[in-house]
Amino acid sequence: MPQVDYFHHSPNMPTPPLSAAARVGNLLYVSGTPGFHVGGRLDEGDFGRQFDQAVVNLREILANGGSSLRSLVKVNVLLTRADDVAEMNRRYAQAFGPAPYPARTTCVVAALPDPRMLLEIECVAATQET
Amino acid sequence: MPQVDYFHHSPNMPTPPLSAAARVGNLLYVSGTPGFHVGGRLDEGDFGRQFDQAVVNLREILANGGSSLRSLVKVNVLLTRADDVAEMNRRYAQAFGPAPYPARTTCVVAALPDPRMLLEIECVAATQET
Amino acid sequence: MPQVDYFHHSPNMPTPPLSAAARVGNLLYVSGTPGFHVGGRLDEGDFGRQFDQAVVNLREILANGGSSLRSLVKVNVLLTRADDVAEMNRRYAQAFGPAPYPARTTCVVAALPDPRMLLEIECVAATQET
Repeated sequence: MPQVDYFHHSPNMPTPPLSAAARVGNLLYVSGTPGFHVGGRLDEGDFGRQFDQAVVNLREILANGGSSLRSLVKVNVLLTRADDVAEMNRRYAQAFGPAPYPARTTCVVAALPDPRMLLEIECVAATQET
Repeated sequence: MPQVDYFHHSPNMPTPPLSAAARVGNLLYVSGTPGFHVGGRLDEGDFGRQFDQAVVNLREILANGGSSLRSLVKVNVLLTRADDVAEMNRRYAQAFGPAPYPARTTCVVAALPDPRMLLEIECVAATQET
Repeated sequence: MPQVDYFHHSPNMPTPPLSAAARVGNLLYVSGTPGFHVGGRLDEGDFGRQFDQAVVNLREILANGGSSLRSLVKVNVLLTRADDVAEMNRRYAQAFGPAPYPARTTCVVAALPDPRMLLEIECVAATQET
């Protein structure tokens, strides 16, 4: 059976029963990552700040798992407001670019686990095999 | 081209055009799995029972594919009611724990294929290469 | 670090910051693929035509990435109207069959990035390692 390695969130992050990421072979699967700050604060109602902080969190999770934003294979962006799509694409291009970009799916869901969350980003990244 | 192996549902399960799981290399991709009992019964309106039965179904699918709840890499939990998040986390911790847990994304969708379904769990698991 | 290869959409397709697909090892991850025609036209309000065109687009993306509808591992179908589930299953069985089918998850989301989109299909496929 191939080994699965699990990577933890920073201390003081909200902690439902999940790992920030798990690696199998040369793939790193990253959990749906919202824009919480260390300590659990969330910029309520501010999509731009939540997005930017989610990217900060993703960068750290990817680095812990031996990968980076430049080795992404697939990204899923989950939003709660259809009106945020255009701003998401603008900020996404800055954070995840330049091209070539990873494959991606975007959808608007009915809700995310915390009602203050306006987005969540999950991804699969290439990483070095251990 | 790498071989893909497909694993079937138990007989008498509702059968849309899908396999319960598919394996490629040492990864097993498991379909969104609801809490149907063998024979097609669903505990209408009872989130706890649907969750527990979905876990029973997942265990069987994972075993058929050469894996288990202890070799999960990534899990997605799809709910239809935001109010079920807390109970989902309680039951999830019992069924999928102890830590380390797999990576996970949770979202509340507008609906699932059968209006009685309150949840669906899909996952990617490590398995032995054939 | 394993190499990730990115595959582009046809020219004249709507182009948010994403690749049509990305390959790592022998897996091809395909972006959520809607039913846009070349040039950007979408059959508004017509689920069947949008589905069929999404399949046309998927076939092309899979071929560009060295795979096909017969090498799919996992498919996710995102709908915006619960009433389209039955027709989706009918058309899906024709396009993706005969059995064995890939693993699959279907859900109804609150919205997709363009309000005219009635569906989006994403998938993971086996492909030849480069």
